[in-house]
Amino acid sequence: MSNPSKALRDFTYGLYVVTTEINGEPKGAVVSFVTQVSSSPKAVAVGLRKGTAIHDFVRQTGKFVLHVLSVEQKSLAESIYKSGQGADLPQELALGKTESGLPLLRDALSWVEVRVTEEAGEKTDHRLFIGEVVDGDKIRDGKPASLFDVGLSYGG
Amino acid sequence: MSNPSKALRDFTYGLYVVTTEINGEPKGAVVSFVTQVSSSPKAVAVGLRKGTAIHDFVRQTGKFVLHVLSVEQKSLAESIYKSGQGADLPQELALGKTESGLPLLRDALSWVEVRVTEEAGEKTDHRLFIGEVVDGDKIRDGKPASLFDVGLSYGG
Repeated sequence: MSNPSKALRDFTYGLYVVTTEINGEPKGAVVSFVTQVSSSPKAVAVGLRKGTAIHDFVRQTGKFVLHVLSVEQKSLAESIYKSGQGADLPQELALGKTESGLPLLRDALSWVEVRVTEEAGEKTDHRLFIGEVVDGDKIRDGKPASLFDVGLSYGG
Repeated sequence: MSNPSKALRDFTYGLYVVTTEINGEPKGAVVSFVTQVSSSPKAVAVGLRKGTAIHDFVRQTGKFVLHVLSVEQKSLAESIYKSGQGADLPQELALGKTESGLPLLRDALSWVEVRVTEEAGEKTDHRLFIGEVVDGDKIRDGKPASLFDVGLSYGG
């Protein structure tokens, strides 16, 4: 008896936060469907569920910051997840700005800023936003979280 | 000083093997750029470096099996990597077949079989093959490998 869901739950993911800005307001959401897709030029792909606020905002702006959270930041991820109906961010979050003015999570492990160059996922429930990395850095040392590490799961 | 490569090296990946069949021959390669992109319908995206044999074979056939390796299978991955110039598979590999006849790694943790429905990555050095999951299962219990766990890295 075939059970692809069980296999999909064995896929390994990191714990990421996407941010962008709409009308001067910082917006963000926790995401997992993330992969690099190119080293030269540097590019990444992020899957955002169609119909969510963050999906619509990234589609509208064509740019976002993708942050990597570390293994001890499950509660940070949960606070963003809980406040996240309209992709609003918790008030207490330490936010800076990238050089181009996008919201930067100061407590993240590292981040890349992305300009969307391509979309994919006509038939899928998440849309893939593929984009070139135009900036980014490691903020501090630490172990990147995997969803398994922090006892979370997505997909399946 | 911006350093996006350092940030990209913090991304978390699993350890996967893609297989397909060309002229009755099983072919395969170790891959890392993998994510689910849809739960309904179930779909995944896999990034394969343009110009590699596995890229060309998957593009030609439009179908593949994506296997998840467990944390103790670094040496299995390395044996596939080493024999992999033309995406040939090591002779000693325990191979079965999926119902549709594609090569199945019997020692993997789990697997999904995929029919490519869309490609992306016009400007990237890997092409993203996005496809619907048509079959799959968990073969055995075990901990899925992350590249960090097994001391490997890709991307950056």
